[in-house]
Amino acid sequence: MIPADHPRYLSLVTREHLAECAKRGIVTLEGLTAHGRGEAFDYMIGERTTRSARTAERTAAALLLMAQNPVISVNGNTAALAAREISALQKACRARVEVNLFHRTEARVTRIENLLRDSGVEVFSGEAEQLLPLSHGRAWCRREGMYSADVVLVPLEDGDRCKTLVDMGKTVIAIDLNPLSRTARSATLTIVDELTRALPQITHACHEISESEKKSLTSSVDNHYLLSEAIREMTERLSHALD
Amino acid sequence: MIPADHPRYLSLVTREHLAECAKRGIVTLEGLTAHGRGEAFDYMIGERTTRSARTAERTAAALLLMAQNPVISVNGNTAALAAREISALQKACRARVEVNLFHRTEARVTRIENLLRDSGVEVFSGEAEQLLPLSHGRAWCRREGMYSADVVLVPLEDGDRCKTLVDMGKTVIAIDLNPLSRTARSATLTIVDELTRALPQITHACHEISESEKKSLTSSVDNHYLLSEAIREMTERLSHALD
Repeated sequence: MIPADHPRYLSLVTREHLAECAKRGIVTLEGLTAHGRGEAFDYMIGERTTRSARTAERTAAALLLMAQNPVISVNGNTAALAAREISALQKACRARVEVNLFHRTEARVTRIENLLRDSGVEVFSGEAEQLLPLSHGRAWCRREGMYSADVVLVPLEDGDRCKTLVDMGKTVIAIDLNPLSRTARSATLTIVDELTRALPQITHACHEISESEKKSLTSSVDNHYLLSEAIREMTERLSHALD
Repeated sequence: MIPADHPRYLSLVTREHLAECAKRGIVTLEGLTAHGRGEAFDYMIGERTTRSARTAERTAAALLLMAQNPVISVNGNTAALAAREISALQKACRARVEVNLFHRTEARVTRIENLLRDSGVEVFSGEAEQLLPLSHGRAWCRREGMYSADVVLVPLEDGDRCKTLVDMGKTVIAIDLNPLSRTARSATLTIVDELTRALPQITHACHEISESEKKSLTSSVDNHYLLSEAIREMTERLSHALD
């Protein structure tokens, strides 16, 4: 038991939850390490949604709402951390939710799909094919899902797949706490924020955004600016860290 | 198999090795997440030994060589990542090497001790007692080991134990890539460098440091300055990251 007054309580409880999900075959061992990386970057932005992240989140809502065929791609860590938040966002933006894994086995896909359904997600689980020009299990997706999507939200994605989706002409929205990662740099729009803070912000924006804000945000997506702002926030926080 | 030309080859191989060690019960699932955190901070200092880290490493060598009863405390991640480097340092500074775990079971202690012995470490494994004022397995150590040490090297330590050892009057040398962590701030001396780079640097310094350099370094340990330098290096690198 982690004592509730521990200075890092929330972080430790989340870590324990992910370890538990690893034992159940939802999260991979590599996924645990990836989570740790995210933790470090979150620490650096002060474990809060920054101003630039909020802009990115509203822009993501606009892109999802204006899409013809929006898809939310879910992996093990995303399902373990935010199944309920994915369900709420799906309802708000009418996106297909599809499970796509780096370390892919049919059994893992099924376990994650079940976890999502238990949290109210309507999972799009048509037959998967090797449609993406990528090695390993990452090539797999569904023809009527990610393959034909015009806008894809990829929380916690790997750099190769993100770049491939962009090269296929899709609008790719990444959620990635590392503003220097290959994913963050290659996505159309990167939200530098922690997953369980970012998703409710996007959902909230979906409910209240106006037609004119939608148009204005989607006509001026500047990922380089958003990343440089995220880095500026980190730098500023670091400079005062020992004060 | 990870392709050798992958841009993150070394990092991926290390991650895979740790996952393998987790399956063998050497590393905990929480240890995998902790490694990810370290990776992120290492990325931020450019995955190289900075100037301030080099100073810290030479100072660590001086402190270990001048100690009456130096002890190197080893946990699962340290054993998995750097058993051979621990062995070389032990030979260079004649320190006792003792296994101390956050998630402690006798079986895990034995597995880690065996791994260390296989890499040439002389393990000090006398009977452990609950001697430190800490909850859980962290209280355990050996009376003639960590408990009576004057200088303790704690690579990858948790904040509570580090602070407790300092409060007991010991000189505590931490190796921690996060210059903002509780460990980094409470240690007598913190080396902000990656473990497998830091240990050989300390060993090298043990072999070549002069009596006068030893005296000068140990008489002017300024952990706050070293941490602020590490942060400055990160900040500088971040500011140019998108160039």
